[in-house]
Formats: sequence, structure tokens, C-alpha cells
Amino acid sequence: MIRAAVVGATGIVGQQFLVALKGHPWIEVKSLAASERSAGQLYRDAITDKSSGAVRWFCDEAPVEEFMDLPVVNANELSTADIDVVFSAIDSGPAKILEPIYAAEVPVVSTASAFRYEDDVPILLPGVNADHARLLEAQQKRRGWKGFVTPDPNCTTIGLAITLKPIQQAFGIDSVIMTSLQAMSGAGRSPGVIGLDILDNIIPYIPGEEEKVQIETQKILGILEGDSIRPAGFAVSCTCTRVAVLEGHTESVFVSTKTPCDVASVIKAMTEYNSGLAIAGLPSAPQNLISVTTDPFRPQPRLDRDNEGGMVTTVGRVRQDTALKNGIKYMLVSHNTKMGAAKGAVLTAEMLIRDGYIA
Amino acid sequence: MIRAAVVGATGIVGQQFLVALKGHPWIEVKSLAASERSAGQLYRDAITDKSSGAVRWFCDEAPVEEFMDLPVVNANELSTADIDVVFSAIDSGPAKILEPIYAAEVPVVSTASAFRYEDDVPILLPGVNADHARLLEAQQKRRGWKGFVTPDPNCTTIGLAITLKPIQQAFGIDSVIMTSLQAMSGAGRSPGVIGLDILDNIIPYIPGEEEKVQIETQKILGILEGDSIRPAGFAVSCTCTRVAVLEGHTESVFVSTKTPCDVASVIKAMTEYNSGLAIAGLPSAPQNLISVTTDPFRPQPRLDRDNEGGMVTTVGRVRQDTALKNGIKYMLVSHNTKMGAAKGAVLTAEMLIRDGYIA
Amino acid sequence: MIRAAVVGATGIVGQQFLVALKGHPWIEVKSLAASERSAGQLYRDAITDKSSGAVRWFCDEAPVEEFMDLPVVNANELSTADIDVVFSAIDSGPAKILEPIYAAEVPVVSTASAFRYEDDVPILLPGVNADHARLLEAQQKRRGWKGFVTPDPNCTTIGLAITLKPIQQAFGIDSVIMTSLQAMSGAGRSPGVIGLDILDNIIPYIPGEEEKVQIETQKILGILEGDSIRPAGFAVSCTCTRVAVLEGHTESVFVSTKTPCDVASVIKAMTEYNSGLAIAGLPSAPQNLISVTTDPFRPQPRLDRDNEGGMVTTVGRVRQDTALKNGIKYMLVSHNTKMGAAKGAVLTAEMLIRDGYIA
Amino acid sequence: MIRAAVVGATGIVGQQFLVALKGHPWIEVKSLAASERSAGQLYRDAITDKSSGAVRWFCDEAPVEEFMDLPVVNANELSTADIDVVFSAIDSGPAKILEPIYAAEVPVVSTASAFRYEDDVPILLPGVNADHARLLEAQQKRRGWKGFVTPDPNCTTIGLAITLKPIQQAFGIDSVIMTSLQAMSGAGRSPGVIGLDILDNIIPYIPGEEEKVQIETQKILGILEGDSIRPAGFAVSCTCTRVAVLEGHTESVFVSTKTPCDVASVIKAMTEYNSGLAIAGLPSAPQNLISVTTDPFRPQPRLDRDNEGGMVTTVGRVRQDTALKNGIKYMLVSHNTKMGAAKGAVLTAEMLIRDGYIA
Repeated sequence: MIRAAVVGATGIVGQQFLVALKGHPWIEVKSLAASERSAGQLYRDAITDKSSGAVRWFCDEAPVEEFMDLPVVNANELSTADIDVVFSAIDSGPAKILEPIYAAEVPVVSTASAFRYEDDVPILLPGVNADHARLLEAQQKRRGWKGFVTPDPNCTTIGLAITLKPIQQAFGIDSVIMTSLQAMSGAGRSPGVIGLDILDNIIPYIPGEEEKVQIETQKILGILEGDSIRPAGFAVSCTCTRVAVLEGHTESVFVSTKTPCDVASVIKAMTEYNSGLAIAGLPSAPQNLISVTTDPFRPQPRLDRDNEGGMVTTVGRVRQDTALKNGIKYMLVSHNTKMGAAKGAVLTAEMLIRDGYIA
Repeated sequence: MIRAAVVGATGIVGQQFLVALKGHPWIEVKSLAASERSAGQLYRDAITDKSSGAVRWFCDEAPVEEFMDLPVVNANELSTADIDVVFSAIDSGPAKILEPIYAAEVPVVSTASAFRYEDDVPILLPGVNADHARLLEAQQKRRGWKGFVTPDPNCTTIGLAITLKPIQQAFGIDSVIMTSLQAMSGAGRSPGVIGLDILDNIIPYIPGEEEKVQIETQKILGILEGDSIRPAGFAVSCTCTRVAVLEGHTESVFVSTKTPCDVASVIKAMTEYNSGLAIAGLPSAPQNLISVTTDPFRPQPRLDRDNEGGMVTTVGRVRQDTALKNGIKYMLVSHNTKMGAAKGAVLTAEMLIRDGYIA
Repeated sequence: MIRAAVVGATGIVGQQFLVALKGHPWIEVKSLAASERSAGQLYRDAITDKSSGAVRWFCDEAPVEEFMDLPVVNANELSTADIDVVFSAIDSGPAKILEPIYAAEVPVVSTASAFRYEDDVPILLPGVNADHARLLEAQQKRRGWKGFVTPDPNCTTIGLAITLKPIQQAFGIDSVIMTSLQAMSGAGRSPGVIGLDILDNIIPYIPGEEEKVQIETQKILGILEGDSIRPAGFAVSCTCTRVAVLEGHTESVFVSTKTPCDVASVIKAMTEYNSGLAIAGLPSAPQNLISVTTDPFRPQPRLDRDNEGGMVTTVGRVRQDTALKNGIKYMLVSHNTKMGAAKGAVLTAEMLIRDGYIA
Repeated sequence: MIRAAVVGATGIVGQQFLVALKGHPWIEVKSLAASERSAGQLYRDAITDKSSGAVRWFCDEAPVEEFMDLPVVNANELSTADIDVVFSAIDSGPAKILEPIYAAEVPVVSTASAFRYEDDVPILLPGVNADHARLLEAQQKRRGWKGFVTPDPNCTTIGLAITLKPIQQAFGIDSVIMTSLQAMSGAGRSPGVIGLDILDNIIPYIPGEEEKVQIETQKILGILEGDSIRPAGFAVSCTCTRVAVLEGHTESVFVSTKTPCDVASVIKAMTEYNSGLAIAGLPSAPQNLISVTTDPFRPQPRLDRDNEGGMVTTVGRVRQDTALKNGIKYMLVSHNTKMGAAKGAVLTAEMLIRDGYIA
């Protein structure tokens, strides 16, 4: 069994890691780390408010009993001696400091954005760019680490990059225009989105999000050449908004392809992309990376986010676009805190275990 | 005073007409018409459920006392003898039948789509295409009517067409890509959007909406040549979605212009478009057709829909777009049941009164 | 295997029956019935809109493949020849007519209120008043039926009656005051609660609901004496409201008991009520009828409605009440469309199968 | 003109004070105070985020231009030299320290709870207990202050106390049971209610709220005897919950009266309570303190909260209660941040100006 530590274990993403790792066939959680405030307590106590008795557990799934009595250590003092992989669920600021310390010794799979944009760091998306994992070796060499840091993509990037991949393969891509309608869970809970701001409303701006999606999509769909990734050559332009949805990002996508395409051929490319997927057999992998529906009223975030354990991207409303050269447009729904966060990072770790990067 | 009839007076749009016409300086409501079920009752009784005493009044504004004791006549039997203008708030099906009957005698200003796509029918948008009103004369001649039918645009078209107009004037337009996040009120109440379908959710499809917006935008921004309108030559491609917002449509717009533009010049064009507006002085006109905000978190539907009585389109997040040639992108919020329905139709009537088409 | 028909199979409650009966160990669905409009089609086709391709399936769970290719028969022409039990998911109006026709031949377990208030009809609530089932024999005799009609309680009654039962047993009850905050799903979809009415709002009135809860609670907690039920002698006074919640009714309950009680003794009575429950072993039965939490921020409908498959009533905030003699107050959450509708009716059927009433 | 300072001016309640004092005929705002972070800036700048340009203005009404260019002073250093009254919109913690400092010199009207429960402090509710103002003189004497502190009631208490008053006068009260469904705005914005917690949900607990309502209601409806208030002798028992409503608290009330009452006599008592109201003529006073509707579907928070400028309590569903002796039950809606906060405090100040306590 691969021995894992979860850092940031008391926060919402940390808790999602615990849910994703419950009864995992390959990975066992050996260590939980959090901020100084929680350190020294049993996990059960660390998430319980002493004065009121309220339990601060934020997942829909029940608290995972098998981890409740593990002690929580200070993230600054985490020992990696008996650990094979660190799952990092901390914010970008502390991640910048702590992840290199862990990575000096062991692999770190992270949901933070801290290292995503560095030249020797791939943004792995299982089923899409597994070959980029080779960049981790260059990273180790360059930084003199025994481990490495491999960050997962931003939750909004994931559904977009996954659905663009078969289009890129089949027709080439000239440009991408996307408007997102993002769930509140993407903003976390500190305080995240305030109820007074979002009920009967839309917030038309998520600081930094559009830049992340634009850069990450090009990097993920780029080509690894020697020790660096040449970004995909097409432009990506986004508008990212927040809506009163709990979980599940919805995206309205318009694509201009290099060679002509039509609705049927795009649906065929997306559907066939699932067969022979290199992630088949990984414990957290969905049966399909992409599921295409012909019901014109789908995908809907509440109805489709949990498809295949929240790990599939559901596509619908594939139509010809009339404003772009070789234009195609579609909607997608992707679960931003399953495939888009902890469970997606566990899938990445599974791929790296299978391929020998984590051992 | 211009004497008006409101047809469909018991429905939500009809009630909005009553609110928009309350204490109007130029127009007095002389006649209320509705379906057979309501005919023969005082308006007050027609909107009161006999068994429970519940009042079926759907506007945020209080019921308009001055119209409460008017009798409701059967829309099939409305006499236009002492009427100068009919405001039609009925559905497209009955509008197809009833509006020509009224128009044979008097002008009809309608929120229904029934006649929008006919060659001799303009889609008037005050401040944008007032010159298209001349087509009404051709309509009268061709159909042998004393009156005419002039339908208002679809509520989703309005904010888009208004904001594209100054861009078209200043830079020319090559193509437009738009994703809408539309309020529930646009779907009415029969039953409109069901609560179970929209809470914690998005509905990614509104039947017929995208086609309406695409065609209407080209017609409104087209050129009247002789007895017909040559549509604007740019492509419009939309994805229209429904969100859990009560009122106010939000639109994410991407525009490719013919000549280069930048953020400052687009904001300047939009802002200057307001000066010397031909609708200044009309009782329902806003001070500005377009208001541009630089607060990156605006516009928001709940905070901006009621600006200037719900008659201004609020624009924000004007940014360079990187995926289109000469690309510019922005967000807009437009009140779909004020400027986008009855009050907008009253503004149209005011313009036609001023210009002598209604007398 | 018990052979069942589901009547009203295309509606939301009918679909919940299909979900509740999927892979059932004792019951197999042999026949699906619906209105004339659906009759003659395969179920799959009956719930698919021909023009748009939209699928009208309303449960969170996926459509049940094993029933998709069953033919739908006209509910007026349902043959009960090879059927052992009819599950009725139709509205009260048609139920009044159709349920006696079915009951003449076979047992009918119904979610409709049509027969709830008749003297020879019990309102069975498994785990609470199983002994009332004997009244079914009187019903058969009196009406000359081979079968019977046994309606489930109103969804709002269920959590209240279940939680009052151990209090009644331990302390006796003098009076009950309850304010409900009910989920939208309780109103169904025709059109149910309109989004425009409920967002950022509360609807303070649900016609008929308060009377139902008051009468049913007394009947369920009453005593079967000979061939009739003597209602429980305590008064029940309710205010029932609708809130913007998808599923799960929340109730604020104040009880005046006959003998003194305190928080600890009430929690003890509720908790111990679960042990040796007569429904243990029934396939749809929860492990507990009542689960008591001490987290002061619970129960919450979204977090607690799905506990134990939606079949447990979660109680929290048990506190001394200071306004009533021997007052106790608490909050409860109960899943109105699981335990409160189809799945609860299946549990009733299971109890009646075990006890020999259905065979 | 009375010269006022607003302390806590940049927070949500402070901003509501500015809205309530805009163009006030008796009071002019001379001074704005806030925390050290804002001190030394113009108000306009203090509420603008420097990096993003976002404006932190939280009221539905537009920012009040007349106050935008006032300087903000540090609340710790506020000079009361040229001030006649301080409006305090700060939290209870700092209020405990700062309000006595101000009150040593000038009257303080506060929305904080810091002093509500002290013996020499009245909780004034204009129209209900104006005579309690005499206690302010005792307070001044006892504490050696030139000014005084007069806190407004908790927002949830207000509608309850107002509607109980005419019942108390007409029939006497034995006990009160109340369940509230409270709006999110009552929790403020730091962070207040998190969107992830409240969408599709109810939070069944608001720490401290129930105790506040119980104690305050008894104090407000008590009798001033000499230098202290004898609390009303009836018991009040509450359950307070939070729902997904922006503004407007809804309360389900059950009352046991001393002498028999019926629906008509309670409605009459409430309606007649408005005539000859001692607050008539105060600039912020509503025409009625209580408005009773017979529409069974009202009051609704979204439809009724803004009645009479948010200053009236709307009552509906008055019914006989069957569980209590002489029982009556009803629903009420009260605007928690108009009558329930800043605008209510301005009304209190107006009453005290008229009666000579503030000069």
C-alpha cells in the first residue's frame, strides 16, 4: 500500500481527500496535517467546536470513521519519513512555502495553484496529457528533489480541457471562447460566497480565474518537447461568473476548428475518445471521461454533476456555431470538487503510482 | 391624452403595463381586455380568487388603484372605437389572430413575437432604430390597415442590440458571440420555471430563444431600404440559459469588430452614445440607454436591474478579447420585464406619439 | 415474489415508486399504468418528449433501466388478474374513483389522501401503529372487497407522528404546536411551486395541509377499538409554510406532556424507541426510526434528509419549553418524498406482506 | 437641526443609517466614524477597494451622494463636541466600550445589544412603550452621564412585540410560542450566512437569538415602575431559524390570551391599534404599525417587507388555535434591517427629539 499524508485535512478540500481515500485499494492514509490551531488533537476533536458541539464537516458524504481518531500534526512539522505521497489541500500562499519542503523528500500531489505556472511543472490531467508526467523527472533533477510537486488544474479548466482534447485531435483548434457559470463550492468557505451576495443574483467576476483557465488550457493541451511544454497554439478567451449553484461548474463553449467539423463528427470524436482510455482500471477513474447527451435540456449541474462519481464531464447542446469559422458550440457540466479537486488529485496519484512515479 | 386599451390585462405582462401607465402624462387607460374567463368582471375581482381570497397580482409594485374598478372586456370583443392605441400583452398564438383585428383600426404596440419576423414589420427599439418606424407606413398600405402592429424585441435581444449599436457605429461589427443567464420572470407564470427545476441549478436551453436573438439583433441593427430592412451583415451566435434570478437578464458578450478597438474607445463610444439621445424627454425614457461601470464586480442583476427605473442597460467588465480578431468582451444586465417588456413597449408608444404615428 | 402494479407511473411519485422497487427482494413490478395519454407506449417512450427529445424523469436517481421497456397501460383498464398489490401514485381526485375498483380485487397501498379520513381506513405508519392494520379486515368485510385501500400519511404528518410516539408512550401528551418549513417537492410538478414565487421568499400557506396534519396525527396515534380508531385525545395545532428547499420537511415542534419530562428523558425515550423495532428486517426499513443529534446546528434538511436512505426522522435542538406546562421543544427533518411518499408506501407494503395482509 | 454622528459608518448597518438619514428634515449627519482602518479617508474612498476598484456598498438603495465626501474619523477618537446624538452601528463588543464614552457627553441610539439587558436601560419601541423613555433619566443620574444609551430591540423581537401589544391590551397574554424564519441580512456580512450553507437548506439555530427575543419581549411589554421595568408576566418560548431569504423576518406566532378572543376581535384590536398612534408625524414613522391582510397567502417576506418603507409589520393568517387555552395564531413579516435596525433607530431618535430627550 502507498502511504499518504493529507495536508490541510480539516478544510473542505482536505475533507474531500478523506472521502476520496476512504477504503482506497492502493492508498492508505497514515498522517493528517493542518494548521497549528488543530495540531495535537484527534481529527474528530479538531473538527468539533468545543463550546457548541457543532461538527465542522463540509462534505455531503458522512464523516469518514476510519480517519476520525487519527492525530492531527502541525503542517510545518510533518514528517515524511514513512510517507510515499503527500496530498496537499492548502491555500496557494502556504503551498508556496510548504510544498517544496515536502517535495524535497516525497511526491506532492496538490490542488493549489502555487506551482502550476512554473516551466518544470506539468499540469497533469489523467486521460488527456499523461505523457507530460515525464517533466517531473526534469523537475527533480533541476531542483535536486527526491520527490516532486504536481498540481492539478483549476476546477474550471478541467471540463474545458477534457472536451477540447478530442476536438483538437480530430479537427485542430483555432480559438476558444468560454463563459462559465461556476458553483459556490469553488470559492471555499473562508468565507467563500456570502449568501447575501448570491441569492437572486450573479457575480460576474472571479478574480484571477479567467487568466488561470486561459493559460492552463494551453499548457495542458500543449506538447512536451525536451524539458519544457510548448503551449497549444490556439487562443482561449473566458468570462467566469459565479451563480447560486452548490456544486458543478457549467460552461458555455464556442470553438473554431482548423478543419471543418459538424455536430455529428464532434459528438463522434468525443464519444470515441473514451474507448481505450489510458486511465481505465484506475480505482477513481470514470468509465468515460466525456458523456454526450442529446437531451436539449441537459447537462444541468444539479442533475449531471454526480454522474460516474463526479468524475465524468457531461456535454450537451452540441450545435453548429454561425459566428466563427468552422464553429461548434456546446455546454458542459463538470464536478468542481470531485474531478475538479481532491478526487481528481487522487486519480492523478493513481496514474503516477501505476506509471512508477509514486512508489 | 392618448386613449389606450391593455389586452391581456390580468396576466403578468398586462399588469406591468398597468404599472408602467400609472399616472402617465400622455396616455390614459380606457379599456382592459382579457380572456373570456375574466370578462364581465371589475379588474379587482378578475384578479381575486373567489374561494381563497388570494389576489393574483404579480408585480413588485402595489396594485394600481386607479385601474382596479375598470371593467374587463373579452379580448375577442374589444371595441377600438374610442381607443388610440392597443397595448398587447397576450401570447403569440392569440396575438396572431387578435392583433390584426385591432390593427385594422388602431395602432398596436405588442410584446408578443407573432409579427416580429414579417418583412413589413419593424422591431422598434427607441434610441437605436427610430428610423425603422417608417416601415409602419408600408405595412399599413400593404395590409390595408388604418393602424399597424409594432412588436417590441425579445427581452434578451434588447440589451444586446443596445450595446452593440455604438460599437457598430464606431468600429463596425464582424461577429457576435453571446451567452445569456436569463431571469425566471422571462418565462412567465403558466407555469414558467418550476422551483424544483431551478434551485441549485441551471437550465441550459430555452426553446426558440437563441434563434430569436440572432434574427432580431440583425434586423434591429439593419438598414431600412425602401420598404424593407436589410439585416446587419454580421453573424450572431448565442447560447441562452436560465438561472435562479428573479428579474434581470445577464449577458456575456464577445464581439469582433471591423476596425481595431480597445477598452477605452469602446467605453467612450458607449458612454457618448447617450448624449443627444433622440428619446430624451419621453416620459419613460432613462437618462442613459447605456451605463458603463468600472467596478469589476458589476453589473449584477439584483443590484443593477432597477437602475434608472429598469430602463438602462448596465455594462461592465469591458476587456480586450484575445480569441477574436479585434476582439472586445463585456457583461451586461438589462431588466427583462421593464425595458424588456411592458415599460419598453410604453416607451415605444411614446416615441410613436411624439413622431405622429399614434394620435 | 409479490407481483405489483404501479399506477400513475409517469408522474413524480410514480417514478419514486420505481426507484424504491428497483431490485426489490420481495416485490416485482409487473405492470405500469398511467393516464390515457401515455397508454400503449413503452415506459421509455412515455416519459420522452417526442419533439425535443427531452426526458421527463424527475428523481435524483437515474431512470430505472429494468422498467424502461415495460408497456404502459391505461389506468382505467388496468387488469389486476396477475397482480398481488397495486401501488397508487395518482392524485386524490382520480384515486377516489380508481382505487375502489382496484381494491375490489387486490390490496392498494396509496400515497393519495382520498380515503385517509374514512372510518374503516387506517393510516398505517410502520413502527408506530402496525396494530391498526387489523382495521383492513373490517374494511374488506364492510365494503365487500377482496382487497383493501391503505393510504400512507401526509408527508408532513409522518415526522411529527413518529417523534410524538415515544413521547406519548413515556409521558403522555396534552397538546402539540408545530410550524413546518416544507420542501417544494411536496407540491409536485403540475406546476407545484413556481420559481418566481419561492426564490428569496416564504409562502405562509399550503391549502388543506394543516387540517390534514392535525387529523392524521390524532388518528395515527389513536387506539384501535373494535372496528374503529379512537383518535388520540391531545390537540394538535399547526402552521404549514413552504420554503425554498428541494427535499426534506423541517418542523419546529412544541409539546406539552401529561407528566413532567426533561431534555435527557425525552432524548432517551426517542433513542430507545428504536430498539426492538417491529419493522427491523423489512427491506426498506431504516436502522432507526428516529435519530437524535446534539449538534445544535442540526438537523438541516439538505444535510439530514438522506440519512438512512431518507427513511429516518432526524431530531435535534431538544430543549425545555418555558411557555407550556411540562413543555419540550425540538426540530425535526423528515424526507418528504422518501419516507414521506413512495418509499414509505413500499415499507408499508413490506409490513403487510410480512404480516400476511398482502400475499 | 439635530447634529448626528454615525459610528460604524462603513458597515452594513452604518450604511443603512446613511440611507435612513438622507435628506432628513430634522437631523443632519455631521460626522462619520469607523475603525482605524478606514479613519482619515473620505467616506467614498473608505468603501472602495483600492486594488480592484470594487465599491463595498451593501444597501439596495444607491450610495448617498451627500455623505460620500465626509471624512471618516476613528471611532475611538470621535469628538462629540458639536454632536447632539450618536447613532451607533457597531458590534456588541466594541459597543460595550465605546458607547459609555459617547454617552458621557451625548445621547446614543444604538442597534447593538450591549446594554439592552441592564436595569436602567429601556428598550424603546416607538408606538409601543414610549413611556419607558423616562428610565433614561434614571440612567443618566445613576451613571453620571450627560447623555444616555438607548438600544433598539433585536430585529426578531420587534415584529413580535408590536403585534403582541394590542393583544395584551385587549385580552391579556398568558403565553407566547413563536418560530421564526429569519432573513440572511440579520447575520450581517462578516461573513454572515455562507451561501454554501443556506441554499436548498435551513439552519435551525441562531446562537443567542431565542434568549434575546424571550427577554426583550417581556421587557418591552413590561411596566415602568419607579426606576425599573417590571417585565410582562407571560412566558415566551421561541425557536429561531435561518432561511434563504435576503431581507424580512417571518414569524409563526401562537398566543394564549387571558380572556377569550376570536379572529375578528384580534384583527380589530390590531387594526385599531394604529389609530391615534403616538408616533404619527415622526418623519420615519409608517402610517400603521400593523397592517392585517386577509389574503391567506400573505404575508410573504419578499412581497411585504418593503410595505410602508419597511416600517410596518404585516400580519396574516389570523386563526383560532386549538392547542392553547384562548388560543390565537398568526404569521407576521417585519423588515429586519429597516424597522429592525437603522431606520427603526432613527425613528426612536425622532421620538426622543420630539419628547425633548435629544436636543
